[in-house]
Amino acid sequence: MTDYINIYRDELLKGVIPFWEKHSIDRENGGFFTCLDRTGKVYDTDKFIWLQARQVWMFATLYNTVEQKSEWLNIAKQGADFLLKHGMDSEGNWYFSLNREGQPLVQPYNIFSDCFAAMAFGALYKAVPNEEYALLAQRTFGNILKRRANTKGKYNKAYPGTRELKNFALPMILCNLSLEMEHLLDKQLVDELIEDVIHEVMDVFYNQDIDLILENVHLDGSLSDSFDGRLINPGHGIEAMWFIMDLGVRQNNAALIEKARTIMMRLLDYGWDQEHGGILYFMDRKGHPMQQLEWDQKLWWVHLESLVGLSKAYAYQPNEEVKDWFDKIHNYAWTHFRDEAHGEWFGYLHRDGSRLNELKGGKWKGCFHVPRGLMQVWKTLEKSEKRASKNSQVAPADN
Amino acid sequence: MTDYINIYRDELLKGVIPFWEKHSIDRENGGFFTCLDRTGKVYDTDKFIWLQARQVWMFATLYNTVEQKSEWLNIAKQGADFLLKHGMDSEGNWYFSLNREGQPLVQPYNIFSDCFAAMAFGALYKAVPNEEYALLAQRTFGNILKRRANTKGKYNKAYPGTRELKNFALPMILCNLSLEMEHLLDKQLVDELIEDVIHEVMDVFYNQDIDLILENVHLDGSLSDSFDGRLINPGHGIEAMWFIMDLGVRQNNAALIEKARTIMMRLLDYGWDQEHGGILYFMDRKGHPMQQLEWDQKLWWVHLESLVGLSKAYAYQPNEEVKDWFDKIHNYAWTHFRDEAHGEWFGYLHRDGSRLNELKGGKWKGCFHVPRGLMQVWKTLEKSEKRASKNSQVAPADN
Repeated sequence: MTDYINIYRDELLKGVIPFWEKHSIDRENGGFFTCLDRTGKVYDTDKFIWLQARQVWMFATLYNTVEQKSEWLNIAKQGADFLLKHGMDSEGNWYFSLNREGQPLVQPYNIFSDCFAAMAFGALYKAVPNEEYALLAQRTFGNILKRRANTKGKYNKAYPGTRELKNFALPMILCNLSLEMEHLLDKQLVDELIEDVIHEVMDVFYNQDIDLILENVHLDGSLSDSFDGRLINPGHGIEAMWFIMDLGVRQNNAALIEKARTIMMRLLDYGWDQEHGGILYFMDRKGHPMQQLEWDQKLWWVHLESLVGLSKAYAYQPNEEVKDWFDKIHNYAWTHFRDEAHGEWFGYLHRDGSRLNELKGGKWKGCFHVPRGLMQVWKTLEKSEKRASKNSQVAPADN
Repeated sequence: MTDYINIYRDELLKGVIPFWEKHSIDRENGGFFTCLDRTGKVYDTDKFIWLQARQVWMFATLYNTVEQKSEWLNIAKQGADFLLKHGMDSEGNWYFSLNREGQPLVQPYNIFSDCFAAMAFGALYKAVPNEEYALLAQRTFGNILKRRANTKGKYNKAYPGTRELKNFALPMILCNLSLEMEHLLDKQLVDELIEDVIHEVMDVFYNQDIDLILENVHLDGSLSDSFDGRLINPGHGIEAMWFIMDLGVRQNNAALIEKARTIMMRLLDYGWDQEHGGILYFMDRKGHPMQQLEWDQKLWWVHLESLVGLSKAYAYQPNEEVKDWFDKIHNYAWTHFRDEAHGEWFGYLHRDGSRLNELKGGKWKGCFHVPRGLMQVWKTLEKSEKRASKNSQVAPADN
């Protein structure tokens, strides 16, 4: 796995980050363009809070963990300025999208706007100890917890009482967000929250009987035989498993890490398309036809999250099966998603691996999964390598 | 085109209607199952108001226009009973979906539930002069007109004032619904409404400069350079053009019919996939990447609506270009969508024509576009044939 360290670092620093530095900064109105075509040309100027916040997080995190480059910090800060100025309604809820100038387009119906905003300001505060950033991250985090039971508020179209389901996405994101924001939160709150979300993810949404992670279950955790209740999103589950491995490391809980690794391997196996390669986007746990017409497409983020999960599993405990899967996903991803000619990666493939569009960014794809994934794999394997080489230096003296 | 008459009639009466008669009736709870796999097996029991109402309309219309079979009327009536009992909230708004027993699952956020319910009870009243049906259709129609300006009500997530767009779907459906319900509505209301929706469709959503029908425009009719404002749905536009041709016939307006035919031919040409055949689902008028990941898929209803439009254009004015297009779409549709083995048609194909699932019905596909399309083509060509043969008998005597 050592060879991958330089490959992932170089792709991050030479292939991907320069693309966003060069093409995504809106120097006129602030914030970022994320709708970029294959070459980086802007084809739409709307600003989606998910992606604005994720790019702030990404550049702040590069500054915090890779190198303290003032260019990176400035990019993060200019995105944060735009968000501070335009991102929220009067009650501090984050809009879903804005136009180029920052006027709201879509109401704050989506709690993940708030999650990524909190994550962004949490990371930026590590780089610049500006109390405004800390307070905003904390206030937003508090707001998320308050909205947890009905995240969509008045925009919730489910009729109460007939089929109450809970959704996997928020507990999953909180696994990651609680660690991202730990430096800004009360220790007891974090400890309790982490216990809670680990339980939700590993004991409730992960269903032992079918050995899968569900996207939606009844409030009591039981299976729902409905479109939502049959839905499996292998990439989502795989991403959650590396969040859980991170929590396992924090808690020094080997059993938790081992369980997350096992579930991740199961999901890789379950989601892998035997016919064309790549991991399917959505599946029905009973094999029924799905309402998602994109079900058999191959998405960039699914494959990057898998690479992160596998690198973490390998770093924790080197293992041939994990390495083989890493090689397999790596080969698929680098052959199909990477764009050596113009930088950044393609996002969307048909089942057979052909591209269904050539965008580098859009409404849902921005400066996030590709660079975060590359950074995570690089840093994870590098750390593991250093530890191994330190151990091997120490070992002889111990003998 | 004469050969097609029997082909479409037989496919309707032998290949398609028996499938729904056999597999879709819920004899325990009333209403219809629409989630049916290739062989007709029920894979989900949720009941979507769009599809419940459309099936009532379909069987009532078969009874009204094909043959007064009591089996057909009974099927329509049992669907109507279920709708009457469970379909509405206390204010007469139609829910979006119910569970098998009829308890509401999704709130009345979608005005097309109301449109198809009004259409269903309008058709059923023609078959059975039950005043309850008439009143319900009229009240629902009034409700639709009242909700026209903000169809989603409190579920509308657009922030007011930043980018106000109006959407093509409702005026388009009203072109058809106003004719479907003419027997129940005040003549002046119908005349005014028809003028209004023809204007909206032909002068506002059809944009002369780009020679396309838009899905969304600014309130003043101008183009919006945004994801929604660039969206083209060729099948939607084509379907609307046969609604307009019907209105043109009613108004005896040859220029309107000719304009609708011309726009339809343009949309067929624009939407046709030169590479793999079939009509694309969504397009961006500037050729930009789209948020709809299903953009290049081939959907059954698009092709059936095209066949209806072409048959109507041909019946009105026989023309080689129209005939060639009919042959081309017919060949594509019958090769790719038809399922001789089990009845009904497949619904969803990848760009290359391979099937992305094998459902015969689901959340959006029910007993509607296939049988309505087959019936329309059959009846349209048959009527045109009778007229032609009558004319040719008369002609010699005139010479």
